[in-house]
Amino acid sequence: MRIVVTNCNTTQEMTEEIVRGARAAAGPGTTVLGLTPAWGPESAEGWLDSYLSAAAVLDTLRRYQEPYDAVVMAGFGEHGREGARELVDVPVVDITEAAAHLACLLGRRYGVVTTLERSCGQIEDSLEAAGVGRNCAAVVGTGLGVLDLGDAQRTEAAFLRAAERAREAGAEVLVLGCAGMTGLQRAVGEKLGLPVVDGVAAAVKLAESLVSLGLTTSRAGGYARPVPKRRTWGAPGAEGSPPAG
Amino acid sequence: MRIVVTNCNTTQEMTEEIVRGARAAAGPGTTVLGLTPAWGPESAEGWLDSYLSAAAVLDTLRRYQEPYDAVVMAGFGEHGREGARELVDVPVVDITEAAAHLACLLGRRYGVVTTLERSCGQIEDSLEAAGVGRNCAAVVGTGLGVLDLGDAQRTEAAFLRAAERAREAGAEVLVLGCAGMTGLQRAVGEKLGLPVVDGVAAAVKLAESLVSLGLTTSRAGGYARPVPKRRTWGAPGAEGSPPAG
Amino acid sequence: MRIVVTNCNTTQEMTEEIVRGARAAAGPGTTVLGLTPAWGPESAEGWLDSYLSAAAVLDTLRRYQEPYDAVVMAGFGEHGREGARELVDVPVVDITEAAAHLACLLGRRYGVVTTLERSCGQIEDSLEAAGVGRNCAAVVGTGLGVLDLGDAQRTEAAFLRAAERAREAGAEVLVLGCAGMTGLQRAVGEKLGLPVVDGVAAAVKLAESLVSLGLTTSRAGGYARPVPKRRTWGAPGAEGSPPAG
Amino acid sequence: MRIVVTNCNTTQEMTEEIVRGARAAAGPGTTVLGLTPAWGPESAEGWLDSYLSAAAVLDTLRRYQEPYDAVVMAGFGEHGREGARELVDVPVVDITEAAAHLACLLGRRYGVVTTLERSCGQIEDSLEAAGVGRNCAAVVGTGLGVLDLGDAQRTEAAFLRAAERAREAGAEVLVLGCAGMTGLQRAVGEKLGLPVVDGVAAAVKLAESLVSLGLTTSRAGGYARPVPKRRTWGAPGAEGSPPAG
Amino acid sequence: MRIVVTNCNTTQEMTEEIVRGARAAAGPGTTVLGLTPAWGPESAEGWLDSYLSAAAVLDTLRRYQEPYDAVVMAGFGEHGREGARELVDVPVVDITEAAAHLACLLGRRYGVVTTLERSCGQIEDSLEAAGVGRNCAAVVGTGLGVLDLGDAQRTEAAFLRAAERAREAGAEVLVLGCAGMTGLQRAVGEKLGLPVVDGVAAAVKLAESLVSLGLTTSRAGGYARPVPKRRTWGAPGAEGSPPAG
Amino acid sequence: MRIVVTNCNTTQEMTEEIVRGARAAAGPGTTVLGLTPAWGPESAEGWLDSYLSAAAVLDTLRRYQEPYDAVVMAGFGEHGREGARELVDVPVVDITEAAAHLACLLGRRYGVVTTLERSCGQIEDSLEAAGVGRNCAAVVGTGLGVLDLGDAQRTEAAFLRAAERAREAGAEVLVLGCAGMTGLQRAVGEKLGLPVVDGVAAAVKLAESLVSLGLTTSRAGGYARPVPKRRTWGAPGAEGSPPAG
Repeated sequence: MRIVVTNCNTTQEMTEEIVRGARAAAGPGTTVLGLTPAWGPESAEGWLDSYLSAAAVLDTLRRYQEPYDAVVMAGFGEHGREGARELVDVPVVDITEAAAHLACLLGRRYGVVTTLERSCGQIEDSLEAAGVGRNCAAVVGTGLGVLDLGDAQRTEAAFLRAAERAREAGAEVLVLGCAGMTGLQRAVGEKLGLPVVDGVAAAVKLAESLVSLGLTTSRAGGYARPVPKRRTWGAPGAEGSPPAG
Repeated sequence: MRIVVTNCNTTQEMTEEIVRGARAAAGPGTTVLGLTPAWGPESAEGWLDSYLSAAAVLDTLRRYQEPYDAVVMAGFGEHGREGARELVDVPVVDITEAAAHLACLLGRRYGVVTTLERSCGQIEDSLEAAGVGRNCAAVVGTGLGVLDLGDAQRTEAAFLRAAERAREAGAEVLVLGCAGMTGLQRAVGEKLGLPVVDGVAAAVKLAESLVSLGLTTSRAGGYARPVPKRRTWGAPGAEGSPPAG
Repeated sequence: MRIVVTNCNTTQEMTEEIVRGARAAAGPGTTVLGLTPAWGPESAEGWLDSYLSAAAVLDTLRRYQEPYDAVVMAGFGEHGREGARELVDVPVVDITEAAAHLACLLGRRYGVVTTLERSCGQIEDSLEAAGVGRNCAAVVGTGLGVLDLGDAQRTEAAFLRAAERAREAGAEVLVLGCAGMTGLQRAVGEKLGLPVVDGVAAAVKLAESLVSLGLTTSRAGGYARPVPKRRTWGAPGAEGSPPAG
Repeated sequence: MRIVVTNCNTTQEMTEEIVRGARAAAGPGTTVLGLTPAWGPESAEGWLDSYLSAAAVLDTLRRYQEPYDAVVMAGFGEHGREGARELVDVPVVDITEAAAHLACLLGRRYGVVTTLERSCGQIEDSLEAAGVGRNCAAVVGTGLGVLDLGDAQRTEAAFLRAAERAREAGAEVLVLGCAGMTGLQRAVGEKLGLPVVDGVAAAVKLAESLVSLGLTTSRAGGYARPVPKRRTWGAPGAEGSPPAG
Repeated sequence: MRIVVTNCNTTQEMTEEIVRGARAAAGPGTTVLGLTPAWGPESAEGWLDSYLSAAAVLDTLRRYQEPYDAVVMAGFGEHGREGARELVDVPVVDITEAAAHLACLLGRRYGVVTTLERSCGQIEDSLEAAGVGRNCAAVVGTGLGVLDLGDAQRTEAAFLRAAERAREAGAEVLVLGCAGMTGLQRAVGEKLGLPVVDGVAAAVKLAESLVSLGLTTSRAGGYARPVPKRRTWGAPGAEGSPPAG
Repeated sequence: MRIVVTNCNTTQEMTEEIVRGARAAAGPGTTVLGLTPAWGPESAEGWLDSYLSAAAVLDTLRRYQEPYDAVVMAGFGEHGREGARELVDVPVVDITEAAAHLACLLGRRYGVVTTLERSCGQIEDSLEAAGVGRNCAAVVGTGLGVLDLGDAQRTEAAFLRAAERAREAGAEVLVLGCAGMTGLQRAVGEKLGLPVVDGVAAAVKLAESLVSLGLTTSRAGGYARPVPKRRTWGAPGAEGSPPAG
């Protein structure tokens, strides 16, 4: 089985890290292939980035012509999953929802620890729309940006502090709230004495599950195939600059 | 006061129609300026279109350098409003939420009549996230595509049929669920004996209200200014073709 | 356009203050007229006052025979708006819901800062029924009574303390939770670095918006005209005394 | 034990009927005393009536000086209960909430059958605020006005038709949605094969229960004693006329 | 009237204590009879105990052949009430829901103080399913086990500490969250200045109310009589040992 | 990996059928072992059966001493999963929640088709508590008992009729609402043009996923290990007879 994992940003190193995490989770017969969008934000932090990322990831999937069996969308809290469900004929699993689905099986309430506080609202909305928001006790930020997660010690310390707040809010299980945190689950899980779910790993297992059961997205209703029409994906000479402000 | 109205698709005629509706609603001191994205879908119908549209509209706003006092986003049920709130320093009002805000003042429950059934779920999610989903009794489709609304007689008949279903579900007020329906409110309102709210007009009035009260988007929390970083808006040679399938 | 603003209590000075706030918000073509109930509580603080106020305000509207285009009900969290919608043929906007509608456009979550803690529950119920409770992060009391708001310095200090609690609960926008706070928005807004919405101003703009769009209350369903019947508005010799206890 | 039952309207015959129902439900040691407001609507049908009724009933309680142990408020879906809780030192039970509390014990979902359709929304809001809205499957109108319930045969037939709709919506238990329906429960209950709860009887039993357990309204928070202040209960010469329209 | 009170555990002393509490609450014509399950846990603390208890209590009721008019199930937060409603033809009232029903009549929000923290989630779920979860502000543990409640002074001190947390969360009324706390309401109520509801007493009054109104469980829908079939209640030689771990 | 699948009833044939379904879903390295409770109901239909089943299944797990890696609880809508999570140290997945988790990934709303209408409420409660109730559009009964599912043609016809009602309520994905329906998904899925999720298969895949990721139930909070104490699992000579009525 071939699973395509889409990074939500243009940072190739992060794609590689995500693919490593996905491969570690994948079953013996599964091949994992990472796709990095040719455009979009270098990291997704906030709504503007998220919508830019959504279009870029959909464009990436649209252009990718090799055969595959499932898509894992590796942007925690980022938009786009419903569009991918319309676009491709194979199951699509987003790491946000995936982590929450597994977390619900491990405790009565779960919490999410993510990067910047500004992302918390987006993640809450994403969980709610996915139908798994009810048992989320808290989404807590660490104050670290996506591209600051490299310093493992600082990241771990910040994670543990944020995790404590999630636990006080009732969380019995934790979710790594950023694809770039993949790998952290073992280290912090032990220290916290709580199960820690990584969304990339969770999504890989759920994608494998759907494929092996022969299940794919319903075409009845919201996720029908896109209506054929003229669509243009980005303007000519589209290189961007940071927004003013 | 200058209000920028962004169409969510690339169809210039629709921008013009929306601008006509916005101008009819605007107060004496208000100038309305329509923007048509240089890329994106020719009409937004479904999730894929909506995410493509969100990025294209944000790109349009990013490139627009003239001064203005507020943004009206004229894509009913389409994504992007939170990104625009991050991006610009003036108030941003989306026609979906705007129509619902006014509808809540006119009756205990409101209903939305939109184009294709596939858009209903998106609209429900948009209303819910905007905080005005509670009093929505139903979102009902007419079965007509966005670009099929030109045939006024057919559109009106389809609207009236769908409106009846919304009324049976408890709606006391109706909302036009597509920017392309602007203008229909008078004709159908009389026949139905119900107030009918047009989102474009509603958003213009709400934008004028915010501007005249000196209010703009909070920068504390979710809608902080975007983090400066590298962002690329579309790939070179980005002309698209209809998705396979 | 003529907007009637009804104070919820019998204190004439407060009516004047509210009218000042309403006029400051009103557009050039709008005339604002304040009505003070001939009976009711001298300030509305709690459920008993609120129900007494509701009947007195409805009586005031019933007796007022001059023409007007809209009603603004200026009792924050007080009852009666649905009754007024039945009674008059023009749009009715309550300052509680009005402030919340605009606040939803300015941030992901808003908070309300009001007078006595005992009023918080009433305000929560009012927001919920108006359909805008979902994005309310907190309703917080300052501990000051309605008629104690005159001491500007004390009021501002108490407001800032309460606002801090609302912000900690997630509020990105604040709402002045009493008509008697009108005017405070500028002073505290700057100190807090958050948008602050005044319900009186918000309701005036929403009323103007509805009138200019030709929209008024739906008569289908909950807000049909009152059934003709015998109604008596207060007993002869109705001067009251403070309740025992 | 002495229980005061307040009618919500000025129709003395209805007070008598309600008192009959209350006495039939009361335990051996309980005395029931009916109070008819000296002012207010002759029947409560809609929001305007309900707010007028609330003030009139509170005024009635305020003036009533004899000792008593509990209040039953006999206006189904009408406002005022929280005000009465502030005003008096004994338990206050509203027939709307009372019926719902007992109905929750008898089936997984209950339904309410009331008079005019216009009252349904008010009842829904009342149940929700009382904390018992979750298991309400439907509130259905019979199309009969409060003062039309005298024709027993017509009332029963209309009730049975409406009950069928509630049952289809999932109701396993029914609630009589008007104090004027008291007595109907036996006749229709048998025909429907469902338990039918009368709010007046339910409220009497709950009031007796609270009194016998020595429980009364909490003064901590929302239902603290009213703040002493000047309150006027109705204008001099307050005889009303039907509202225009 | 004869009310059967079922203890949820096998500890005879606790049954006696519960019966004492029930008798103190019962009306003059009511006989209270306590049943102790012949099997099950010696105290119910957690989900495993709760499910074991549910089956044991149902078995106890199934075997009990004397006539009676109502059942009170005296396990706070424990499972089984819906099964008892199917099984017997008389009203069944669970002390969890009973306490909440009365608490809703006494304040805008109530809180529950229970034994071990591990039971809080179960209680929340039980209140929610019973339809009375909306106005529950908090469920707080004291850290004391069910069989540790004997030390009255320690229990009271722990209760008061936990009650403070419930009050901070908005509770205006408290509920004793364990049948073994029956009797505590007077002592702590005075110290707290809040009404305190004991579920056993509440359930007795509600059961008496239903019986005296001739109301019993609906057989339409969820609580239809059990389908006749082969059921075996426990394995031969079923004496248990503590679970491994 | 060894997965223990517990039937919720004493019918050995049904265990075998469930094990067949589980094995068809299991990955190459997975061994599936079926356990049939030594006591309990011969089929679980309603609350009484469900609570009896819960205790019997927990007893079965308690007595089972062989090593295993995960538990799948194969009673759709039946109680007990939280107790099993306390009892064993390996992941526990209930087929009700499992089916819903996968269904959420395949469409915006899902529906459940089950056996008798009386089970619908139990299933709704189970989904809600599991945190996946939000996107459930409907739970619909076929009118067939658990032990009547053997007649394949009748079952399929009844399923298709019920599925149509779920689809009209908005379901885009269907869930087989009984372990005894395992195998039906292929036949009806094709005819309906909708994905159909079987809970047994879904639970096997989720259990495999958790095991392979090294995740198990959190011991912090609700699912801590059972407190050591005396527990008795069923009375001596516990052979039951059908309940009276």
